[in-house]
Amino acid sequence: MARIALDAMGGDHAPDHPVAAAVAALKELSPEHEIVLVGPQERLAEALSGHNGVADRIRISHASQVVGPTDQPTVAFRTKPDSSIAVGLRLHQAGEADAFVSGGNTGAVMVASTLILGLHPGLDRPAIAVSLPTMGDPVLLLDAGANVDCSAGELLGFARIGATFARDVMDRADPAVGLLSIGGESEKGNSVVKEAHGLIAADPSLRFVGNVEGQEILECKADVIVCDGFVGNVLLKFYESVGGLFRHLFSQESSAEGRTGASARQFHRLLDYGTYGGAPLLGVRGVSMICHGRSPVSALKNGIIQAAHAVENHLSQHVGDQFARAGVKA
Amino acid sequence: MARIALDAMGGDHAPDHPVAAAVAALKELSPEHEIVLVGPQERLAEALSGHNGVADRIRISHASQVVGPTDQPTVAFRTKPDSSIAVGLRLHQAGEADAFVSGGNTGAVMVASTLILGLHPGLDRPAIAVSLPTMGDPVLLLDAGANVDCSAGELLGFARIGATFARDVMDRADPAVGLLSIGGESEKGNSVVKEAHGLIAADPSLRFVGNVEGQEILECKADVIVCDGFVGNVLLKFYESVGGLFRHLFSQESSAEGRTGASARQFHRLLDYGTYGGAPLLGVRGVSMICHGRSPVSALKNGIIQAAHAVENHLSQHVGDQFARAGVKA
Repeated sequence: MARIALDAMGGDHAPDHPVAAAVAALKELSPEHEIVLVGPQERLAEALSGHNGVADRIRISHASQVVGPTDQPTVAFRTKPDSSIAVGLRLHQAGEADAFVSGGNTGAVMVASTLILGLHPGLDRPAIAVSLPTMGDPVLLLDAGANVDCSAGELLGFARIGATFARDVMDRADPAVGLLSIGGESEKGNSVVKEAHGLIAADPSLRFVGNVEGQEILECKADVIVCDGFVGNVLLKFYESVGGLFRHLFSQESSAEGRTGASARQFHRLLDYGTYGGAPLLGVRGVSMICHGRSPVSALKNGIIQAAHAVENHLSQHVGDQFARAGVKA
Repeated sequence: MARIALDAMGGDHAPDHPVAAAVAALKELSPEHEIVLVGPQERLAEALSGHNGVADRIRISHASQVVGPTDQPTVAFRTKPDSSIAVGLRLHQAGEADAFVSGGNTGAVMVASTLILGLHPGLDRPAIAVSLPTMGDPVLLLDAGANVDCSAGELLGFARIGATFARDVMDRADPAVGLLSIGGESEKGNSVVKEAHGLIAADPSLRFVGNVEGQEILECKADVIVCDGFVGNVLLKFYESVGGLFRHLFSQESSAEGRTGASARQFHRLLDYGTYGGAPLLGVRGVSMICHGRSPVSALKNGIIQAAHAVENHLSQHVGDQFARAGVKA
């Protein structure tokens, strides 16, 4: 069982979307799971009043402040100690919740998660892992922007925690790990990537499938693709924008036809981030999951369900064990 | 007027596509332009025999060898001195042609261009600039893979030669230059990008519009986008693959309908690399233009026309002048 603290004030449609997502998630999850909605008591009680059937598994934890989408993360952390983000993470840190999920300000969640939960030894900051939609199963890309100027050792760390997440949460029993580069051969890439290739290949705990080139990202050659946060961030934002552009063209076409064909449905499913849930902050002591601020209810719901799987499968402990082993080896 | 040496043996459909592209280009270019087809004399004469009307502006220069798509560039340079690539570039170097265009092995063209034409002082290798299709005018991205582990000074160099190409060949009188990064503010990016931001901003010859994020690449915020060759190569290949994927879905949809709507046409035009021509190798002493190996005739034709514009507008001299000025300043 898992008790999930949910930032009820995070995202463009808070608190309605988070509350609806919480109710929907509890209907899917087995009955021992519980959700703590974090936000203004009265407002949340009102938002909840329209929902039936899961009231005994939802409670509200009051938080008087809200971090806005444009707030500076470190400033928000200092000046809004009673924000829904800070209160939710403190619940998790104190053991009153097993995970934290938010559709709010990504930077603020990252800073607060790092400062309140702390990191497993061996990390300077958490990695953000994102699921990229493909025609098949989603591919996990990390880091998506938390770490720039990465060392080869950090890329190895991303490979390890990415593989662990894929196993514990994405149901990939033996995930294939790839390294983003500009050619298939081990000697292709920039200096950090070439060094990382050797380190990742030498780790017997990883099923390394070698370099993955740009055109292979969506071919599901690897379950987990490792890159520094600069490349990962550019790529993620570019993919979202290309998807938006093509979605626009496709919608024009479909609406001109007055109906939607099978390919159009496949196309929308491909680009429907709602089916993919959240982006975990990997490396924190605990489970912290970020959902897109514009997430539909289904995405937030899936983020909550992923967080519950992460708790049940002991993700944080497995990540910690990995770094502990690496520390002993070093 | 310009005399273009065309590698008649480069690309998947050589020599038919190059020959057809040469004929089509001459029909569009003003009558003083000429093309030298480089490749096996007899085979090219035969391929040419079916084409009429421009025979007095095409001649053949014999080359007995062909570089294949999988040949190692440096090995090919050493072992195939009579390849169509080497012969064509030597014609250019000797002043018997003003530019070289090839749809062949990119690496081989890059190596041979560098060794035969030489580079303007201040460069270690040429940059590859590619035109990315957008809903509006194409955006020039460089470097697309020739230079990894770039310094901030190299990124400044890319900004300068990219702007020069945009002015001389893409008809952008006062091109906007952007720097690819992970946030809009000057302090966002990896260490090299942050340093490059200061260098580019301080160059009065450039109209710098600041950082460009992943989602802004296709928004035509900048005419020229600067990045290191690692990021550029990943992005280019990723975009081509996403385009292929969406094109596939779109075709299924359109063919299921038995006709093609306005949006589908817009969509295909967006992804039709044929309209964009070649990728110049910027920094060589001369004009060397690489077209995609799978280029349709229209892309090769446009590459030839771009090369002619580059010659007429003194691209190479302008690039050389820039580095000479930079050398004096330093």
